[in-house]
Amino acid sequence: MKKIAVIMGSNSDLPVLKGCFEQLKELDIPFEAHVFSAHRTPDAAAEFALNARKNGFGAIIAAAGKAAHLAGALAARTTLPVIGIPVKSSTLDGLDALLSTVQMPSGIPVATVAIDGSKNAALLAAQILAVTDEALADRLHQMREKMAQEVLRKDAELTIE
Amino acid sequence: MKKIAVIMGSNSDLPVLKGCFEQLKELDIPFEAHVFSAHRTPDAAAEFALNARKNGFGAIIAAAGKAAHLAGALAARTTLPVIGIPVKSSTLDGLDALLSTVQMPSGIPVATVAIDGSKNAALLAAQILAVTDEALADRLHQMREKMAQEVLRKDAELTIE
Amino acid sequence: MKKIAVIMGSNSDLPVLKGCFEQLKELDIPFEAHVFSAHRTPDAAAEFALNARKNGFGAIIAAAGKAAHLAGALAARTTLPVIGIPVKSSTLDGLDALLSTVQMPSGIPVATVAIDGSKNAALLAAQILAVTDEALADRLHQMREKMAQEVLRKDAELTIE
Amino acid sequence: MKKIAVIMGSNSDLPVLKGCFEQLKELDIPFEAHVFSAHRTPDAAAEFALNARKNGFGAIIAAAGKAAHLAGALAARTTLPVIGIPVKSSTLDGLDALLSTVQMPSGIPVATVAIDGSKNAALLAAQILAVTDEALADRLHQMREKMAQEVLRKDAELTIE
Amino acid sequence: MKKIAVIMGSNSDLPVLKGCFEQLKELDIPFEAHVFSAHRTPDAAAEFALNARKNGFGAIIAAAGKAAHLAGALAARTTLPVIGIPVKSSTLDGLDALLSTVQMPSGIPVATVAIDGSKNAALLAAQILAVTDEALADRLHQMREKMAQEVLRKDAELTIE
Amino acid sequence: MKKIAVIMGSNSDLPVLKGCFEQLKELDIPFEAHVFSAHRTPDAAAEFALNARKNGFGAIIAAAGKAAHLAGALAARTTLPVIGIPVKSSTLDGLDALLSTVQMPSGIPVATVAIDGSKNAALLAAQILAVTDEALADRLHQMREKMAQEVLRKDAELTIE
Amino acid sequence: MKKIAVIMGSNSDLPVLKGCFEQLKELDIPFEAHVFSAHRTPDAAAEFALNARKNGFGAIIAAAGKAAHLAGALAARTTLPVIGIPVKSSTLDGLDALLSTVQMPSGIPVATVAIDGSKNAALLAAQILAVTDEALADRLHQMREKMAQEVLRKDAELTIE
Amino acid sequence: MKKIAVIMGSNSDLPVLKGCFEQLKELDIPFEAHVFSAHRTPDAAAEFALNARKNGFGAIIAAAGKAAHLAGALAARTTLPVIGIPVKSSTLDGLDALLSTVQMPSGIPVATVAIDGSKNAALLAAQILAVTDEALADRLHQMREKMAQEVLRKDAELTIE
Repeated sequence: MKKIAVIMGSNSDLPVLKGCFEQLKELDIPFEAHVFSAHRTPDAAAEFALNARKNGFGAIIAAAGKAAHLAGALAARTTLPVIGIPVKSSTLDGLDALLSTVQMPSGIPVATVAIDGSKNAALLAAQILAVTDEALADRLHQMREKMAQEVLRKDAELTIE
Repeated sequence: MKKIAVIMGSNSDLPVLKGCFEQLKELDIPFEAHVFSAHRTPDAAAEFALNARKNGFGAIIAAAGKAAHLAGALAARTTLPVIGIPVKSSTLDGLDALLSTVQMPSGIPVATVAIDGSKNAALLAAQILAVTDEALADRLHQMREKMAQEVLRKDAELTIE
Repeated sequence: MKKIAVIMGSNSDLPVLKGCFEQLKELDIPFEAHVFSAHRTPDAAAEFALNARKNGFGAIIAAAGKAAHLAGALAARTTLPVIGIPVKSSTLDGLDALLSTVQMPSGIPVATVAIDGSKNAALLAAQILAVTDEALADRLHQMREKMAQEVLRKDAELTIE
Repeated sequence: MKKIAVIMGSNSDLPVLKGCFEQLKELDIPFEAHVFSAHRTPDAAAEFALNARKNGFGAIIAAAGKAAHLAGALAARTTLPVIGIPVKSSTLDGLDALLSTVQMPSGIPVATVAIDGSKNAALLAAQILAVTDEALADRLHQMREKMAQEVLRKDAELTIE
Repeated sequence: MKKIAVIMGSNSDLPVLKGCFEQLKELDIPFEAHVFSAHRTPDAAAEFALNARKNGFGAIIAAAGKAAHLAGALAARTTLPVIGIPVKSSTLDGLDALLSTVQMPSGIPVATVAIDGSKNAALLAAQILAVTDEALADRLHQMREKMAQEVLRKDAELTIE
Repeated sequence: MKKIAVIMGSNSDLPVLKGCFEQLKELDIPFEAHVFSAHRTPDAAAEFALNARKNGFGAIIAAAGKAAHLAGALAARTTLPVIGIPVKSSTLDGLDALLSTVQMPSGIPVATVAIDGSKNAALLAAQILAVTDEALADRLHQMREKMAQEVLRKDAELTIE
Repeated sequence: MKKIAVIMGSNSDLPVLKGCFEQLKELDIPFEAHVFSAHRTPDAAAEFALNARKNGFGAIIAAAGKAAHLAGALAARTTLPVIGIPVKSSTLDGLDALLSTVQMPSGIPVATVAIDGSKNAALLAAQILAVTDEALADRLHQMREKMAQEVLRKDAELTIE
Repeated sequence: MKKIAVIMGSNSDLPVLKGCFEQLKELDIPFEAHVFSAHRTPDAAAEFALNARKNGFGAIIAAAGKAAHLAGALAARTTLPVIGIPVKSSTLDGLDALLSTVQMPSGIPVATVAIDGSKNAALLAAQILAVTDEALADRLHQMREKMAQEVLRKDAELTIE
C-alpha cells in the first residue's frame, strides 16, 4: 500500500493532528509525519513534495494555520493529491487558514477539509487509496457501518428527563 | 480507467462546470454528468452515490450553491472521494456554499476546492485516479510543465509601457 | 395534539437543546427526541422524516453544527415545517451552521432560528401548532404576558448605585 | 382556510416578493399584502400584528433589508408564526438583514428563510397551514413530486458537448 | 439640564453599561435607567420613547445584543437622538448586534457606537447636551485634557526592559 | 441656529452625500461642506475640528471610505458630536469603512450611521440641534408624520396582480 | 539607486498594477516587472527571490489574488522587504487574498497594503528606499505637499447646489 | 544605524509588543518606545511623526486595536515607512483593527503585518534598515538559517506514538 505523508507547518500543530494519526492507524495505513514550513524551510518542503510520488506516497496531508500556504506549496511541486487542513489559531477563528488553503488558483488544487478537521483528512486520504484498494474500501465501509450503529445506539439510549 | 461523476445541484450550475468538463476531456478521463439535487431529488442522489463504486466510478465531483449540501449528501452514501465545488450565487459571494461544503462533521469528508473552482475539481479527480495510473500521472505532469512554460512565456513577453 | 420531533445531529448537541425541551414541557406539548445524523445515518434520518406526518408529528426541530445539513435533509423528505437550530461549534462562532441551515435552495424551506436558539425553536413549533389550537394559543399568549411582566418587574427593581 | 399576510418594509421590496406571491397563488392560498415599516409606521405594523390572529391570518411573512427589524417587530405583537425574509440591499450582500432577522432574543422567534428567499417563505407558510389541512398537504406533496420530476427530466436531457 | 435615558434590552446587559453610568455620573449628567425590551415589552418601550422629549430627556442610550432592535424601535417613536450600543453576546462576537443597530433604513437614524462601547455612548450623550451647554462643554474639554495627560504620563513612565 | 459641517475625505464621496445635503436643505439647517482628508491634509482637518465649536458649528458629519479615519480624526480634536458615514468603496462592501468608523476607542465617540447612510447623518445632526430647538423638533416631527403617511399611502395603493 | 521588483502571479493582474508602475515612474525609481506564480512556477519565483538582493533590488512588490501565496513565497527566500498587494478576484471581494497575504507566520513578514492598493505598494517601496536616499525622500515629501494642495484646491472649489 | 520607533496606542498593548522588543534587541537594533494615541493625544503623535526622520528614525512601528488609526495617523505626517500591527481586542477577533490598518487610501501606505504580529513588525523594520546595511542583512540571513535549522531539528525529533 502507498504511504500517506502528514506534514505540519509547526510542531505546535501536533495536538490538532492527533485525530489524523489515530484514524490512519485504525485503518492500518502506513504514514510518515514531518515538520516542514512553507516559509521557514521552503526547500525541505519542496524537496519532499518533488520526491513524494517516487518515494511511495499516495497522498499528502498538510496542516497549517494563519496564511496557510503549506498545502499549496506542496501541491505546487507534486501531482499527488494534497489534502489541506486549515488550523485555527489565536485570531480570526480559522477563517484565514481556511481561505488561504481552499481558494487555490486554477491549475493547482488542494483538497480542503474543515478547520481543524484532521480526522477527516485521514479518512479522505484513505478514500483516495481505497479507489483501487478493495480491502481498504471494505474497512472504510465497515467503519461507516460502525459509526452509523453508534449513532443509532445513542438514539436508542437517549432519554430526556 | 475508472470514471468520474460530475453532479450538479441544478442545471443553472452548468456554466460554472464548463472548466471542469474541458479539463476532464483534455486529460482523456471518462466522465458522466448528472443533475441531482440533495433537496429536490434526495433519493436519486443517494441512489447514485450508493452505487457509484460498483458502477465504475473513481471519484464524484459535486457542485452546488447556497446551503450546498450536495457534496455532503453524496459523501454520506459512498466511501469514494467526493470533491465539492462551492458555487457562488446571488448573495454572500459564495461564502455560504463554501462553509456548507467544507465544514463537514467528523467521519464524512468532502474534498473542497475554491468557490467556482471547477477546473481544479477536475484536476483533483485526475490526481486521485493518477495515484495508481502512471500514464495519467505523466499527463498531469506534462500539463504542469506546459502551464509553467506558459507563465514563463508571459513573463518573457511582459512589457510595461 | 400533534407531536413535535426534536432531532439532533449528535448527542453532543444535548446541552444546547435543554432550553427546547424545557419550553416544550412547560407548554405541555408532546415531543419525541432522536439522534440522527444527516451524514452518518442518512437512511434513518430520511426514514423518520418520510413518516413523520403520518406518525402524528406536526413539526420537526433539527439541531446541528458546522456544515449543518440535518434540517435541510429532513426538509427534503417531508412537507411538515422543519425548524433549524444552527449550533455553534469550536470554530467560526456558528456562522457556518447558520448559513448551512438558512440558505436553503428554492423549493425546500427551513425555518431557521438564532444560533443555539433552541428555546425559540420550541416556541416556534408551539406557534405552528397553535395556528389551529386555541388552547395552546392562549398558553402562548399568557407566557408572553408573564415574560413582559418579568421585564417590567426587573425595570421597576432596577437600581444603579 | 386561514389567510397569509405578506408585509414588506418598503414597496421597493416588491420585486423580491414576486416569487412569494406566485407561490401562494399556485397553491391557492388566500393572502393579503401590505407595506408597513417597523420604523416609519411602527403603530400600523403593531396594530396589524396585534389583530392578525383574530382577523383570520394563520401566518405572517415579513420582508425587510438592512437592519431588518420588521419580522421581529411583528413577532413581538403576535403569537402567530412570523416568517422573515432578509432582503439584500446595496451593501453587505444581505448579511445585515440576515443577522437582524434570525438572531432574535429568547422568547420571540422569527422563522427565517434564505436571503431574498421569498418563494420559500410562501412554501413555509403553506407548510404551516398544511399541518392541519390535508388537502393543502397533498398539493404541497404533489408540488414536490413535480419539482423532483423536473430535476430528473433535466438530468435525462443533460448533454455535455 | 436635560436628562439622559439609558435603556437596556435585558438586565443581563447591566455589566456592559457600568462604564456608561460611571461616565454620566462623573460628568454630573442626570439620567434614568430602564429595562425595556423591543420584543418582550414593545409597548413599554414605545411609550417611553413617545414621551421622552416632553419628560425632559435630551437623548436616549439603548443597549441590546443579537438582533438588536431596541435602539431602532425607540428611534422610531421619538425625534430625540438615540444612541445605540451593540452588545456582544455568546455568538458572532457582536457583529449581529452591530449590524442590527447601525444599518438603519433611511429616515430613522441611530447613532451607533462601538460594540460594548458604553462609556463612549455616555460621552456622546454628553456631547449632544453640550452643544448648547457651555459648562458641560468645558467639563468635556477638561476630561479630554486629563485623558491626554494620562497618556503622556504613561508615555513618560514607559520602560522596556 | 448652529451650523452643521459636512466633511468628506475626497470629493469622490460627493454622490454619496447628495442625500445629506438635500435633507439639510429641506430642514432649513445651515451647513458648510468641505473636502479634508485625515491622511492627505491632516492639519487642515485638525484645524477645522479644533475651531468648529467657536466657529458656530453644532455638529460635524464626516464621510470616508476604506480605513475611514476621518470621523475619528475630527472627533479627536473637538468635543462637538461627530457623525460618521462609512462609505462603500470597491472592495469589502463597506465593512472596512464601517468598522474603522464605529469601533472607536474609549474616550472619543463617533456617532456612526449606516454604510452610505448620508440622509440619516443629516437627520441625526438635525435631531442633535433639535434637542434645544423646538421649531426644528417640530419640523422633524412633521417630516416623520409625512414619511408615515407616504408609507400608508403606498400600502393603500398596493396591488398584487 | 536600488531597483524595485514588481512580481505578479498572473498577467491578468496587470490592470491592478497600473497605478504601481505609474507611481514608480513618476518617482524615477527603476523597476523590473515579472510574471511568476507561487504555484505554477515556484522555482522561477524562488530563484528570483534568492538572487534579488545581489541583483540590485531593494524591495519586492508582489500582487496575487485568492489564496495569495506569492508575496509569502518570495518573502520565504529573501530578507529584502516584500510588499504584498492582495488582488480582488471574482469571489469574496478580496478578503481571501488579504488574509492569505497579511496573516504570515512569525519569522517571515510581508508588508501588506490595501486590497488592489498597487499605488500605495509603489509608494511604500519608495519610502523604503528613501530611508537612506535623501533626494528620493525629498521627492516623496514634495509629492505629499502636492497631494495636500490638490485636496485643498478641491475644498476651495467645492460648491453644493 | 537609524533607530526604530515603536508606538503603541495604549500601554495595554505592551504584552502584544513583547515579541517586537525582543526581536529588535536580538538584532541589536536601537529603538525607542512610546505611548501615543491617535485619538487621545493626536498632537503628540503628529509631532513625533513629523520629526521622526530628522530625529534619526528609519521606520515607525505602530500597534493599535479596534478602529486602529494610529499607524495611518503617523503615516500621514511622515514619509518614513510606517509598519502597522493590528491588535486583537475583546470583540471581532482583530478584524476591525486589521481593516482599519491595512485599507489605507491611495497616497498614504501602511505596511501591515498580521493581527498581533509584533515580532514580524520588528523583522520587517530590520529588513527595511538592512536594504543598505549589509551587516544587518547578514544577521537577518543567519537568523533565517537558524530558524530553518530549528524546524529541521523538530522534524528530525518528531515521533508519533
